[in-house]
Amino acid sequence: MRVGVLGGGQLGRMLGQAALPLGVKCTFLEGAPAPSAAPTGDVIAADYDDAVALRALAEVADVVTWEFENVPVAVAERLAEHVALHPPPRALEMSQDRLTEKRFLSEAGVGVAPHAAVDDEDSLRGAVAQVGLPAVLKTRRMGYDGKGQHWVRTPADVPGAHAALGGVPCILEGAVPFTRELSVIAARGRDGQIAVWPLVENHHQDGILRWSVAPAPGSEALQDAARRHVTRLLTQLDYVGVIAVEFFEVSGELIANEIAPRVHNSGHWTIEGSVTSQFENHLRAVLGWPLGSTDVSGRVACVNLIGEVPAIREILRVPGARLHLYGKSPRPGRKLGHVTVVGPQVDRSLEEIRRLAGC
Amino acid sequence: MRVGVLGGGQLGRMLGQAALPLGVKCTFLEGAPAPSAAPTGDVIAADYDDAVALRALAEVADVVTWEFENVPVAVAERLAEHVALHPPPRALEMSQDRLTEKRFLSEAGVGVAPHAAVDDEDSLRGAVAQVGLPAVLKTRRMGYDGKGQHWVRTPADVPGAHAALGGVPCILEGAVPFTRELSVIAARGRDGQIAVWPLVENHHQDGILRWSVAPAPGSEALQDAARRHVTRLLTQLDYVGVIAVEFFEVSGELIANEIAPRVHNSGHWTIEGSVTSQFENHLRAVLGWPLGSTDVSGRVACVNLIGEVPAIREILRVPGARLHLYGKSPRPGRKLGHVTVVGPQVDRSLEEIRRLAGC
Repeated sequence: MRVGVLGGGQLGRMLGQAALPLGVKCTFLEGAPAPSAAPTGDVIAADYDDAVALRALAEVADVVTWEFENVPVAVAERLAEHVALHPPPRALEMSQDRLTEKRFLSEAGVGVAPHAAVDDEDSLRGAVAQVGLPAVLKTRRMGYDGKGQHWVRTPADVPGAHAALGGVPCILEGAVPFTRELSVIAARGRDGQIAVWPLVENHHQDGILRWSVAPAPGSEALQDAARRHVTRLLTQLDYVGVIAVEFFEVSGELIANEIAPRVHNSGHWTIEGSVTSQFENHLRAVLGWPLGSTDVSGRVACVNLIGEVPAIREILRVPGARLHLYGKSPRPGRKLGHVTVVGPQVDRSLEEIRRLAGC
Repeated sequence: MRVGVLGGGQLGRMLGQAALPLGVKCTFLEGAPAPSAAPTGDVIAADYDDAVALRALAEVADVVTWEFENVPVAVAERLAEHVALHPPPRALEMSQDRLTEKRFLSEAGVGVAPHAAVDDEDSLRGAVAQVGLPAVLKTRRMGYDGKGQHWVRTPADVPGAHAALGGVPCILEGAVPFTRELSVIAARGRDGQIAVWPLVENHHQDGILRWSVAPAPGSEALQDAARRHVTRLLTQLDYVGVIAVEFFEVSGELIANEIAPRVHNSGHWTIEGSVTSQFENHLRAVLGWPLGSTDVSGRVACVNLIGEVPAIREILRVPGARLHLYGKSPRPGRKLGHVTVVGPQVDRSLEEIRRLAGC
């Protein structure tokens, strides 16, 4: 079997790593030079608007998926006419627009922050009246890792806020007084089988995920709600593959922040920490194979290596540290790898890895 | 860093898989077509007697190791003049000759079966008198997976036994009334640090390993002896890398059967079952990096897929089954992959996988 993957970053690389022992080959469509995924499969070096390349991908692959959620929906839809494609393009469409996403979540009965559409400064004023302050103005499309966001803390921040984001269609989201950020990763198979991993506790800095702990401490009471929410979302989308839902915990409730229709950074710990990784279950799902167990044994932590990689010897010296480098050249703010920490000394080892990673 | 590997079979493939997340590249020297290791690194397609290819390997690699223990000792010694090479060629030499190996084990204070050298039918008669019957006549060199062995059960079996093995130098080993077969895998770093995994219980059929359980049930009392034995062997050889020692358990004692100076089939369970796999620790050792923890959590089993691969869906349906295919074409007696079984239902899942694998 050969899986075609739109995108060839580190998520593709880890899909490729999971594919090899299953006897599955990967072909990545990626226009950027020296893709992280290259050592784990074939690469078609082309952009998403290259019709010839897309045709080639559809021809070599038994099934196509993506590792990058900003793949143009039209590209996914066109591909789906020629080859099996999972997850459904509709999931891509929903997640690419923050307003559509919020509406979808609300309609599915999942709590979201108060929000309103913003198309100009006038509608921003109306949105502020509706949502309250402080609030954050976000572009509806193409935001990730904290990009495309602008805080509106007082009425004085309103003038120029929309222009600061380029005047594109936006959404104003009321600030949520959350105690922490959580996420749930789940997979749904072609036959509707659903597998859910335990909730993860996530720690961001400058809008980028820096470290996670799984299962999220003290989240037993929230796990049922997370499972209910993600099950409803997966079913309503007739989804196939791995999905991630980011939540805020507010007064013991889960408020959904956003959906990623793909394997997710906050699920990297599943490689060592769960019987089956998110990468393997994504492949199993899109190939129509039975999903693997999401059981975990013990607590696991995961720290992102951003901008630079600490000395490898120092990382490997930490008890229970498992290094994952992505083969990318260092650049400020760039995700270059992660370190998963397992074993009995996880708390102390997490502290040491955070110190090495500077977070 | 780039590691050169002599051999490109499934052991090389799993070394290559362990290398990628560490940011380590592999180059395999392998003369056979379509090597199993090919998807995980570069391949120099050449035999061990190809001086130009060996020179090329020494030039690209920061350190060279092997995944095949019948690499000619002279080749390893010649390479060691040009590039860092681990384990020491002496370990190769010792393990390639069953008589040398037995003597080395004895001198290191590790119990072995009664044995005697056999060079012709006359010396076979003398060996029978010394060792007793039943016994097994084995070629001193190039035996693996039960090949190069001939049982001598009664004096009537003596005539022709040596000729049946081609008249090459042999060793007669007295049959050992063992209750089970065990092995220990361990690693030694360049700095002398030693890491030992728990004893493994191994089940062979027709001389080929079919399935293993780790930690070997009820082996707590033997673990200390195993650790002592392997520590002495590693230290005496000034060994760097992973080693495996196969034992018979006889009346609650460990009798060493043979040494494999490389990563070993009975250690494949460490990929999922231990904090650090044998493959990663072999790389860490030869690169001079700190060794990783050999801690295990819970019992793990591993079943070899030999000759043919059962339906993948059937394997993946078994709770806690982790599939590892080697990308090799089916052939009777050929190791095509393995399935590791983890999780709370390991006993029942092991039974199911054994049924699927026909063992």
